[in-house]
Amino acid sequence: MNFIDKLLEASQTNNSLLCIGLDPDPELMPAGMGILDFNRAIVEATADLVCAYKPNLAFYEAMGRDGFITLEGTVACIPDNIPVIGDAKRGDIGSTARAYAKSLFEMFGFDAATVNPLMGFDSLEPFTDYADKGVFVLCRTSNPGSADLQEELLANGPLFEIIARRAREWNVNGNIGLVVGATYPDEVSRVRQLCPDMPLLIPGVGRQGGDLASAVRYGVDSKGQKAIISSSRQVTYASQGDDFAAAAREAASSLRDEINRYRKDV
Amino acid sequence: MNFIDKLLEASQTNNSLLCIGLDPDPELMPAGMGILDFNRAIVEATADLVCAYKPNLAFYEAMGRDGFITLEGTVACIPDNIPVIGDAKRGDIGSTARAYAKSLFEMFGFDAATVNPLMGFDSLEPFTDYADKGVFVLCRTSNPGSADLQEELLANGPLFEIIARRAREWNVNGNIGLVVGATYPDEVSRVRQLCPDMPLLIPGVGRQGGDLASAVRYGVDSKGQKAIISSSRQVTYASQGDDFAAAAREAASSLRDEINRYRKDV
Repeated sequence: MNFIDKLLEASQTNNSLLCIGLDPDPELMPAGMGILDFNRAIVEATADLVCAYKPNLAFYEAMGRDGFITLEGTVACIPDNIPVIGDAKRGDIGSTARAYAKSLFEMFGFDAATVNPLMGFDSLEPFTDYADKGVFVLCRTSNPGSADLQEELLANGPLFEIIARRAREWNVNGNIGLVVGATYPDEVSRVRQLCPDMPLLIPGVGRQGGDLASAVRYGVDSKGQKAIISSSRQVTYASQGDDFAAAAREAASSLRDEINRYRKDV
Repeated sequence: MNFIDKLLEASQTNNSLLCIGLDPDPELMPAGMGILDFNRAIVEATADLVCAYKPNLAFYEAMGRDGFITLEGTVACIPDNIPVIGDAKRGDIGSTARAYAKSLFEMFGFDAATVNPLMGFDSLEPFTDYADKGVFVLCRTSNPGSADLQEELLANGPLFEIIARRAREWNVNGNIGLVVGATYPDEVSRVRQLCPDMPLLIPGVGRQGGDLASAVRYGVDSKGQKAIISSSRQVTYASQGDDFAAAAREAASSLRDEINRYRKDV
């Protein structure tokens, strides 16, 4: 099954637009707990509440070779019906991009990956060539510094709009999505206007301070779908005690329900 | 010793601006040879001819967990006096960028890394905070698709020029450099004008078709230094037979000498 169909099916089955980021931070976990055990417990506690999981590779790479094995194990413990987005933000030239795509889609087996478009389409094509995989192009990221370049004004609008327009042209296999931070609701709205059918991956709710209501209302497509609202720490570290899994389930459940309330307003 | 001093010292000792990219492709190696053995032989054959080595992480990641171990081993077999640039092109938000920086600078022990500036300065700062490490910011990359965004015209010039100007502002620790492809000599010249003192990492000579003479003449600073001319396959796969190491040495030696001839013209 291709990524979009898998996403929509998981979203429908679980009545959820919530994506949980699996970004291990040992300091925020119950003392002495292994990361893979932690991730497995989080997944078991929340797998009926989400439309996707999103491990960010940086946190695994920072652990060296053990991190690699932990990431493989994490992907393996996610149920087959839930898509997994490898948040890697890779971008490089042709043969190198092919190696990254192979790593993400074949070695780790992610259903989708995030990519950085600065180097242009020939750096993304090795990813989009995997027609059954999803490719989320960074467009307007959730961090304050994103304005440094992404808001630079070009003749036809700011850079992030150019990226959204280009993404439409590049979308020959229908598997491109865009990353737009919940911290910039006007930009979420503008990107949804420009790309009415693309899935939008929307991080930045919770501790980054993004406005959840606007992210959902502006982010969904005309059917109230295809917005992937991503939250990491707010859910995974809801409690640092032995009740962390139950607390994560409660946080995920209430976040899903809140998202669904805003969805109904559309 | 900080990266720039180490680079200049290696460059002076070996009378070289040549950087060899260590991008393993088993299909181009002698049949049955292990990648770490191959890299070690290349390094032993060329360590007195280069100013730096540059492994691109993609090719190691594509091998899964074995690749990780191979990359660690490769870094370990490079003599201490030669800087190693981790070509990773990472870019992510604050805490995630810190994890990437930790992975590259602490786990792998690279002397420098390449980074992608699309997400803005707060995504680069965790790298530049390592004041003794070098941070090469993608500016005008060597691939044809780089024009898609990097040549987009802003009010003050194309995007790559904005990146070069911003890099000057961001360079509070004096450890930023820029990546500019040899395939775009006018842009190399322009970036050198804008950033007279920064090290420039210049890929794209050899099989990508960049003009070596222009890359050197335009790329060096006023003292004929700080251009890092990077070549990968042209050197490492000069022969696919048992004589691959000797052939790599010969290719590296003649490339170094050719670079030095153009340097003299400055």
